[in-house]
Amino acid sequence: MSNVVVVYHSGFGHTQALAEAVAKGARAIPGTNVNLIPVAEAEARAAELDAADAIIFGSPTYMGGVSAEFARFKDWTSKRWMDGTWRNKLAAGFTASASWNGDKQNTLVQLMTLALQHGMVWVGLGVAPGFNHSKGSVEDLNRLGASIGAMAQANADQGIEGIAASDFRTFEALGRRVAEAARRWHTVPLVEAA
Amino acid sequence: MSNVVVVYHSGFGHTQALAEAVAKGARAIPGTNVNLIPVAEAEARAAELDAADAIIFGSPTYMGGVSAEFARFKDWTSKRWMDGTWRNKLAAGFTASASWNGDKQNTLVQLMTLALQHGMVWVGLGVAPGFNHSKGSVEDLNRLGASIGAMAQANADQGIEGIAASDFRTFEALGRRVAEAARRWHTVPLVEAA
Amino acid sequence: MSNVVVVYHSGFGHTQALAEAVAKGARAIPGTNVNLIPVAEAEARAAELDAADAIIFGSPTYMGGVSAEFARFKDWTSKRWMDGTWRNKLAAGFTASASWNGDKQNTLVQLMTLALQHGMVWVGLGVAPGFNHSKGSVEDLNRLGASIGAMAQANADQGIEGIAASDFRTFEALGRRVAEAARRWHTVPLVEAA
Amino acid sequence: MSNVVVVYHSGFGHTQALAEAVAKGARAIPGTNVNLIPVAEAEARAAELDAADAIIFGSPTYMGGVSAEFARFKDWTSKRWMDGTWRNKLAAGFTASASWNGDKQNTLVQLMTLALQHGMVWVGLGVAPGFNHSKGSVEDLNRLGASIGAMAQANADQGIEGIAASDFRTFEALGRRVAEAARRWHTVPLVEAA
Repeated sequence: MSNVVVVYHSGFGHTQALAEAVAKGARAIPGTNVNLIPVAEAEARAAELDAADAIIFGSPTYMGGVSAEFARFKDWTSKRWMDGTWRNKLAAGFTASASWNGDKQNTLVQLMTLALQHGMVWVGLGVAPGFNHSKGSVEDLNRLGASIGAMAQANADQGIEGIAASDFRTFEALGRRVAEAARRWHTVPLVEAA
Repeated sequence: MSNVVVVYHSGFGHTQALAEAVAKGARAIPGTNVNLIPVAEAEARAAELDAADAIIFGSPTYMGGVSAEFARFKDWTSKRWMDGTWRNKLAAGFTASASWNGDKQNTLVQLMTLALQHGMVWVGLGVAPGFNHSKGSVEDLNRLGASIGAMAQANADQGIEGIAASDFRTFEALGRRVAEAARRWHTVPLVEAA
Repeated sequence: MSNVVVVYHSGFGHTQALAEAVAKGARAIPGTNVNLIPVAEAEARAAELDAADAIIFGSPTYMGGVSAEFARFKDWTSKRWMDGTWRNKLAAGFTASASWNGDKQNTLVQLMTLALQHGMVWVGLGVAPGFNHSKGSVEDLNRLGASIGAMAQANADQGIEGIAASDFRTFEALGRRVAEAARRWHTVPLVEAA
Repeated sequence: MSNVVVVYHSGFGHTQALAEAVAKGARAIPGTNVNLIPVAEAEARAAELDAADAIIFGSPTYMGGVSAEFARFKDWTSKRWMDGTWRNKLAAGFTASASWNGDKQNTLVQLMTLALQHGMVWVGLGVAPGFNHSKGSVEDLNRLGASIGAMAQANADQGIEGIAASDFRTFEALGRRVAEAARRWHTVPLVEAA
């Protein structure tokens, strides 16, 4: 079994629903145990994070960056950073905001930087961009054309019904990809040079 | 009169058409002289760049960054950087790619970094994001929800007919904004402390 | 008089001391009123922020991004974003961390993105990089070679005595630059096209 | 055997010497074949790139981004991007510039974005930051405190003798880390879900 943890903050439920899609995708890969951890429970459930083969970070994009709640989690990880606890685990990330672009790239760069400070290895979305030609559709996988992680566009005046079905499928694809990578990465222990 | 220069690279004509929209927007502000310079002519027309109150940089996003042709222009500016020739001018930027997101943010961060290395002052798009709620439309101004510059989405299999009219209007808005700022900035000379 | 506000979070006192250096630099420009606001007081002192001609944002870099405390302030500004309250104000930013690089660039990009979402105009550091040649010294201005804002390197095991005097002088230079720009920008009101 | 390719541009020899240090580090891991490819030879040696288990990208930082020569290579990879040729390979990156910070982070973010557009998996530096406390020294490993890749500081007025020995050792550490990861990743083929 390989262990995948999805740790996320959700302010209004959109990112929660998307985190569940990521978890669903990861669970689709046989031999994968998936834990879904809201950042508010991260401290209490630190053992699950420490036991993970892969950690997938999720935050809404607020004012062009991760939410304050996610930032609190980020700062809390500094002890693990000092001890190298998460070193060589796999990592990935996702975010959502109301706009199509909305500076979501910044949020993903932040999540990726956090992971790489921990010495983790970053698995991107790995899904070709959709909805970028005249025959494209809002229902194409990766309709936003993200690469370093998964991005969703959630209408500002709606709940999760305002998120395209394609975004949920894209987030499932991220979960699958990380779980596949975790299975592969997990099989052979990393032997580091002295 | 204040002088605004739009310096850009266009691979297939999309960015050229968008650069023209920026120029059109800038010309709409009385008292503004606008020069449109393809990067291939930058060296020959360096005097126009040096005389500008504001320089607006434009590049397509290729593989998540500025095009090689724009990068050559960027590297060429290093002599001006050394001499501080463009110090305290205003700057802004725009980009286009086939995807809605497509890592265009990286390109704008690059353009902005180039400008700030030169000691320029960065004027963002300043247009509230559109198309981010249930009543939104692809014809909303700033339909992509960009902030640090203007972004356009151009279908991969089409020419400029594959760019939404709203994107052209958004790029005009960037031109207007920079020209207004240039007029204001130009009026009072900057006296730097010794 | 032009109004400059320095709004910052400091975890252990380093960023506070640096914020004071920025304020000192701004005060050196005649006709400048400077208010120093810790993020914890931002809500109570919102009127000072709203009256500013320029706002300078400061945060330590924790795990490659702004601190949770600063992020809380960032999220709080979303009401002002919706109302456009800070539109067309000048902005700038600074950060500190223990490492020379330490992913501080990410923090400055975040601060800059926040400002540009608000429709503010970004004033960079505007100081040529020092300490980058064989005759260079740790006492050169801008010894870290930052451009989009001011960066300080503060030893992890020391208080403010672990920050080079050159960093304090660099932060003063940022304050001066923003105050000069505010005076100039303040003099001519921006008339936006209808 | 696992195959590691280091593909780089060097303007004045600094990045070349650093690329050789990366290659030396990778070769120190038994069972690793290492090819060093200047970007000018990339097209002719495309078969070596396509056969790699890991590709390490290197560029100097010019004006806050990758050099024009590296950008030309980047744009050239778009055919491979379309075909998914480099999908699931490992990737890493390095850069050098005269300043300690010098916006090198932007260059690494660009290299990382390029890799993730290709569907590659990004291996960071994985070396704790040095030279960030009162007992630190310029000879500490990772003296600049980079995380997403390796960074070197090369004095502007010197050749490779102006680069600290610690930077060369840091770049060797990057090569070792990628080669170890490639060996591990190479051992178990990735089986992607249909």
